[in-house]
Amino acid sequence: MYTTAEMMFQSEAEFVRWLRSRTSANSPQVRMGIGDDAALVRVRSGRDLILTADLSIEGVHFSRGVHPARSIGHRALARSLSDIAAMGGVPRFALVSVAFPRSVSRAWIEEFYRGVLDLAARFQVELIGGDTSIVRRTAMLDVVLAGEVVRGRGLLRSGARPGDLIFVSGSLGQSARGLEILKRQARYRKRARGSKQENSKAANAVKAHLYPEPRCELGHWLQQSSVVSAMMDVSDGLSTDLGRLCEASGAGAKVDAWRVPRPDAMPRKHSLALALNGGEDYELLFTIPKATRAKVPRSHGGVPLHCIGRICRSPEVLLIHENGDRSPLAAAGYDHFSK
Amino acid sequence: MYTTAEMMFQSEAEFVRWLRSRTSANSPQVRMGIGDDAALVRVRSGRDLILTADLSIEGVHFSRGVHPARSIGHRALARSLSDIAAMGGVPRFALVSVAFPRSVSRAWIEEFYRGVLDLAARFQVELIGGDTSIVRRTAMLDVVLAGEVVRGRGLLRSGARPGDLIFVSGSLGQSARGLEILKRQARYRKRARGSKQENSKAANAVKAHLYPEPRCELGHWLQQSSVVSAMMDVSDGLSTDLGRLCEASGAGAKVDAWRVPRPDAMPRKHSLALALNGGEDYELLFTIPKATRAKVPRSHGGVPLHCIGRICRSPEVLLIHENGDRSPLAAAGYDHFSK
Repeated sequence: MYTTAEMMFQSEAEFVRWLRSRTSANSPQVRMGIGDDAALVRVRSGRDLILTADLSIEGVHFSRGVHPARSIGHRALARSLSDIAAMGGVPRFALVSVAFPRSVSRAWIEEFYRGVLDLAARFQVELIGGDTSIVRRTAMLDVVLAGEVVRGRGLLRSGARPGDLIFVSGSLGQSARGLEILKRQARYRKRARGSKQENSKAANAVKAHLYPEPRCELGHWLQQSSVVSAMMDVSDGLSTDLGRLCEASGAGAKVDAWRVPRPDAMPRKHSLALALNGGEDYELLFTIPKATRAKVPRSHGGVPLHCIGRICRSPEVLLIHENGDRSPLAAAGYDHFSK
Repeated sequence: MYTTAEMMFQSEAEFVRWLRSRTSANSPQVRMGIGDDAALVRVRSGRDLILTADLSIEGVHFSRGVHPARSIGHRALARSLSDIAAMGGVPRFALVSVAFPRSVSRAWIEEFYRGVLDLAARFQVELIGGDTSIVRRTAMLDVVLAGEVVRGRGLLRSGARPGDLIFVSGSLGQSARGLEILKRQARYRKRARGSKQENSKAANAVKAHLYPEPRCELGHWLQQSSVVSAMMDVSDGLSTDLGRLCEASGAGAKVDAWRVPRPDAMPRKHSLALALNGGEDYELLFTIPKATRAKVPRSHGGVPLHCIGRICRSPEVLLIHENGDRSPLAAAGYDHFSK
């Protein structure tokens, strides 16, 4: 990493000019992007506006020793894209506020924005604003994303009803597994040794952690399918997020442990713990009335959809084990106040 | 200040519940406020959406030793309100992302939100979202504000034309003067000694710094009056911000030094420097075609409107002195990259 002062932008104006040159707004919905007091955009008629904000803070959400700059940018935007997906919306406009320590190089900043802008381009999201500051130590980002959904059709957490089936997309615990591998690599400064198959699984987990794939197309498709009663994304871990969905819906849930998709090539108990509590998977968690089960395919756009349990009237969230035992599924995912 | 751990919120859920209880969304435009993956709002038909983000960072924008928690909240929202005012819009929805050090007390957080929410209520702005994290040292905030303006009528910086007159609202340099006083008080831990009149002027400057008054009504009125060719707010100092307006408009300017409203009760040279470069005044800087001069009153809603100069074809920004001398008005306000 280059950390000479000369590599940094020399003024705010130079930085804004550089960023504008990377973000020429193409959409007719953007009337004014970066470069004025605020951005001016047009929301299409018949649409509600979805707004979400996500902080990414060094030492909390990422570490410059573990995460490349491009991954930090990608992950910051992916978190917000996942929130829009969880409402069944289509992402449109992003505001990215960045506080960089003076020690980061211009090359680092450019790589960071490459991570943001490459992902944004894939989802036709336009970077229309944000704010910038230089700080002493800790890098901090706040990504705000605006999306659209057909009026009155945004999907909330609160619509799950007793008897509904619970689904989760993709695989859980992969990101947490990837982070374990990355931290080990950073500690020993070496690549994991193992069989070719193990290495390819490890590489997939690392990729899932560094470059998570927000489920925007799936979320939008589920919204259009009109079968979903409640939806949210799994960002802090299934045990925490399912508890939130149940609380918002005034219900409980039973989760079949053996149906929860989990990382393989590792001890089963640990892989289940990662899948339940790992966090940062950015998969979608949704419920549907039992009668519409046939409308949910086994996968959509290459993303598997797993039925992992059902919503119950009684407010507990229980984990059902393969031998019939049941245990409370306590929220053990990420909580910013207690960690 | 209370800094015991017991005073802090014990979990993210507890914090979100507390914040929701303070922010029951009243407007029918808000379909979902705090408590889901994202907020859902409705933009009125025939309106463009204005979006702005502003960082407030400890050690850069505020200091907990100088600014009370309520002021930090007030100032953070005021910056964004001022951006909406500068587009001629009406503010509607706010997302406030906060990273608090563990050392701040619950009482501090409550006072901070009092500053945000009291100001929001005065402008009928609803707090609909944001994000929260706990950090080791440095408190950081990002306020995102969404506003509305009649379609295609948002006021940009880029519309000033040679011959246009330059106006500024209120008074400049007051906030910088207030900060000088506050820093001196913090250093000597005492109140300024002086005559009653001096003290009342000092108190006004301190108030201008701690609780700036964003010019939302003035901005909206100017937008409706249809005379303004370009507008922005003075947040980083007139010398910096007028340069930006001129650059965006492809023009230059001549400013009459003696017409620039400045803090009194202090040496003239220093007061002019504060007025030109002080920053954080959150007044409006706007231009109008000369022929419409009669349409701009001497004040609006108790806020004086000063004609301070004119836009020129040649790209320099010049300061004209009372004796006829002229000097370049170089950008000497706040620049985050070079300070």
